[in-house]
Amino acid sequence: MLHKQRAINRCLSLAGKKTPSPRRQQARRRGGAGRGGAGRGRILGRCGTAPRGAGAVTHRPPFRLRCQWCFLAEPWLECFNSPYGTKYFPEYAEKIPGDSTQKLSEVAKKCSIYVIGGSIPEEDAGKLYNTCAVFGPDGTLLVKHRKLHLFDIDVPGKITFQESKTLSPGDSFSTFDTPYCRVGLGICYDIRFAELAQIYAQRGCQLLVYPAAFNLTTGPAHWELLQRGRAVDNQVYVATASPARDDKASYVAWGHSTVVSPWGEVLVKAGTEEMIVYSDIDLKKLAEIRQQIPIFSQKRSDLYAVEAKKP
Amino acid sequence: MLHKQRAINRCLSLAGKKTPSPRRQQARRRGGAGRGGAGRGRILGRCGTAPRGAGAVTHRPPFRLRCQWCFLAEPWLECFNSPYGTKYFPEYAEKIPGDSTQKLSEVAKKCSIYVIGGSIPEEDAGKLYNTCAVFGPDGTLLVKHRKLHLFDIDVPGKITFQESKTLSPGDSFSTFDTPYCRVGLGICYDIRFAELAQIYAQRGCQLLVYPAAFNLTTGPAHWELLQRGRAVDNQVYVATASPARDDKASYVAWGHSTVVSPWGEVLVKAGTEEMIVYSDIDLKKLAEIRQQIPIFSQKRSDLYAVEAKKP
Repeated sequence: MLHKQRAINRCLSLAGKKTPSPRRQQARRRGGAGRGGAGRGRILGRCGTAPRGAGAVTHRPPFRLRCQWCFLAEPWLECFNSPYGTKYFPEYAEKIPGDSTQKLSEVAKKCSIYVIGGSIPEEDAGKLYNTCAVFGPDGTLLVKHRKLHLFDIDVPGKITFQESKTLSPGDSFSTFDTPYCRVGLGICYDIRFAELAQIYAQRGCQLLVYPAAFNLTTGPAHWELLQRGRAVDNQVYVATASPARDDKASYVAWGHSTVVSPWGEVLVKAGTEEMIVYSDIDLKKLAEIRQQIPIFSQKRSDLYAVEAKKP
Repeated sequence: MLHKQRAINRCLSLAGKKTPSPRRQQARRRGGAGRGGAGRGRILGRCGTAPRGAGAVTHRPPFRLRCQWCFLAEPWLECFNSPYGTKYFPEYAEKIPGDSTQKLSEVAKKCSIYVIGGSIPEEDAGKLYNTCAVFGPDGTLLVKHRKLHLFDIDVPGKITFQESKTLSPGDSFSTFDTPYCRVGLGICYDIRFAELAQIYAQRGCQLLVYPAAFNLTTGPAHWELLQRGRAVDNQVYVATASPARDDKASYVAWGHSTVVSPWGEVLVKAGTEEMIVYSDIDLKKLAEIRQQIPIFSQKRSDLYAVEAKKP
């Protein structure tokens, strides 16, 4: 499996990544993005409560200097584990923990970062899932999210896809805690379902992360809109990580990994090609927005409620 | 009360409105908008199941030819009933039915259209509400919606407003049926609360209408985003009607009355000045979208639910 060997090389190269040039660092701070050779559609989210542009902690290795979190795309396309397509999932499926996620764990530990490992086809008890595994800075598996809403759509002449042909849906919500904030997880099509984000917000999440692979029909129409909508409706940061565009793939991803603020602003947005984007997650700003437009305390709990039926 | 006298004149002038010139009609069909002298921020929604651009029914009077529905803005600013400001509400408040809404009823009957009458400050049993009254083609009051979420926000140095200083919130959902589809109502700040739109969609609404008056801070940031988000998340048409911009008013409205499709496309959008915009509400297209991306049947009712606590 060529994909996997390439993936392992790329995955490990994360740890030895060189310091970006001052010019590139500046571009990244402006919300632009440097081209990274190590993987597709990764978002490196620099998170913390320090103000944006706060001084660098120079005694840390370069990679750790730039981020505390690393987000990978839904099927880390042609790189880590599997191409995106129902026919590939049975062949590339793995247990978790397994070979691929073990590498994520090693990178997380080596770099002392949180790794939200995109997704891979997971095999468990004879069923397949589209699963995102998250590792902490010590390399432990913190949570795995199995995609709740399978991507079954049919826009004639544009895009037809039936994940349910080979995959089973997950059946639980997935959050994890960090020293910065609580994070809620969804995968791609999950973002269309407002209720998931609403429940994560109720549970105290301040950042929602969706590894994803929108396409050339739904991408231009809804990719950014859904992220900005989830962000504003729930006053949270939203980050998505997409595979880069590959026009020769059987499924052509939209690209454009993005980070959106709780005010609905697009903070950074990748292009269609391989690149790394950085963004600060400013929890002070989030708190200010929630105070200025206090929709949580203004909700009419006497009239409606979004209720979770599982813990 | 100068406002009211002007309003009555303008209101009645709707019925006698001349046929637009062929050039202006063409501009309107393109999604542009002709300038209308009769009121501010009205959206005339031409609704039906006939395809866009279907032949005109020439034996009908011109006004009826162009629309079946007419939407007016939140406080039909400096025109119908009251300026938008907490200090004005007690002075301009009326019973419903009352003078102002009686005029709406007359226009609805004379033109044989549905009139979603923006909103006025309503007085009832010693309390004031921000209320939208809807009249049917025979002039009867079909429903009145009292704003559920009062506009209490504080963005320092930008916009501070406390509707709750003088107003009380409503306590019920508001829908009405037409031969075309069921319609759900909200007023302005109500649009920030996703649950309201979710419940209307559950109840079979295919068009949501929000008379509104966003401002120069929240307007550019969230006006279009919230409408497109409600439309895509619930696969419904969304129409908003705003007062035109008046830079000398104590509260400067954003303007830009808009109609959005269930795919999230902006179909028509007014500028900041007085104008009339038209849009077709194509229920066949709505049905196609719901079939192509069937989010309603894909919701995970085993995991979550949006529940209404009142009928």
